[in-house]
Amino acid sequence: MPVPKDSQNKISFQIHLRKIPLLANLSEDEMRQVMTDLRIRTYAKRDVVLQKGASGDSLLFLLSGQLQVIDVTEDGRAIGLRMLAPGDFFGEIAVINGSTRSASVVALSPVMVALLPRNTALHLFSHSPSVANHMLRFLAEKVQRDSQFRALLSIHNTAKRIYTFLELLKEKKDGDVEVVENLPTHQDIANMINTSRETVTRTLLTLVQQGIIEKGTHRLIILDPAALQKLAQT
Amino acid sequence: MPVPKDSQNKISFQIHLRKIPLLANLSEDEMRQVMTDLRIRTYAKRDVVLQKGASGDSLLFLLSGQLQVIDVTEDGRAIGLRMLAPGDFFGEIAVINGSTRSASVVALSPVMVALLPRNTALHLFSHSPSVANHMLRFLAEKVQRDSQFRALLSIHNTAKRIYTFLELLKEKKDGDVEVVENLPTHQDIANMINTSRETVTRTLLTLVQQGIIEKGTHRLIILDPAALQKLAQT
Repeated sequence: MPVPKDSQNKISFQIHLRKIPLLANLSEDEMRQVMTDLRIRTYAKRDVVLQKGASGDSLLFLLSGQLQVIDVTEDGRAIGLRMLAPGDFFGEIAVINGSTRSASVVALSPVMVALLPRNTALHLFSHSPSVANHMLRFLAEKVQRDSQFRALLSIHNTAKRIYTFLELLKEKKDGDVEVVENLPTHQDIANMINTSRETVTRTLLTLVQQGIIEKGTHRLIILDPAALQKLAQT
Repeated sequence: MPVPKDSQNKISFQIHLRKIPLLANLSEDEMRQVMTDLRIRTYAKRDVVLQKGASGDSLLFLLSGQLQVIDVTEDGRAIGLRMLAPGDFFGEIAVINGSTRSASVVALSPVMVALLPRNTALHLFSHSPSVANHMLRFLAEKVQRDSQFRALLSIHNTAKRIYTFLELLKEKKDGDVEVVENLPTHQDIANMINTSRETVTRTLLTLVQQGIIEKGTHRLIILDPAALQKLAQT
């Protein structure tokens, strides 16, 4: 989502903001308020955009570039949680709760970010039906994924934990192919599901040899979804 | 929260509904709509009020009695997740996402429950600022607790995992005493944080012997919060 270089060009900028799903259905009045309050910032590759533990005084939108959400475990290991793409918002939990940032966000490329002050964001959350709806769905899905993830962590068998993890991450793409996009590193997967990097590497390799999955660049194609499902369930 | 026996007694019933935090600030119009659409149901002790996997066509409020939210892990063990008290709502995730119920809810005593149809609930969520606010805070806190819980599960040292778990569950009560209310059974704790019942029992016993905690009925009093915090962090 490229942004016009001259951000005084309000009309063109407004069209770009309409491409952000959370803001797509704002009324004209609401959009004007957002345009007035929004601040633009750029970051270089490897910059820390949000720091876990810092105070949370704005909602952020990624306008261009790529960001990664990173959590640091109790014993100090960094876990790459998820990738953000242009049009995504982030930092909503601290805005809603008035709490500190619950994870860090770092730039994987040069990025352009828009910041909406907390009060404007909170007003939209509770007074714009389309925004309220969008936020509730977003958070409910997060809660649901977290609860599936918790169920996963209680699986004793490590290989089965990895199969189930892939089942959770997979999405249907064009032509009904099932893929895992932005596959975390083997070390990140190991940290997330409480096993070793070696076990992750060995288990994925076995799945490749069995023709169940195929590895691409940062993605994984599931060639035999039924077989994977069966492995996860038995 | 007792409810009048004659639920035709609309005025008195309305006063009771105002005691439900989620509905406390509804407009007169919204309250009338809720009153019209709400259905009351009673359940006996041990009845299943919600079944994991069933379709979710209403938001529920507990009016009287006690309920427990129960999850069943991938390998079939039941985990008591949390207790519900009169005034609490539940079943919101399936209502928002149009998904199936993500956990089961069972009655620990005879209970009275109010059911609000999905469409009425969704309309309130996005059109009543007070309800939208309340729901967003509720879900954001859930997401935050889940993320702390995930960080906890990646702690390799089991005793430290138990200390950190107590740190997460504790609340400040009257006179600044720190307590864990509705302490799950040792088996439930073991299932939740991926260890054995014996280890939980042994670790808690050691904390009692060290004078750091004291066990009451279904609750745990933290006598030396600083010592517990130190154990969790070092």
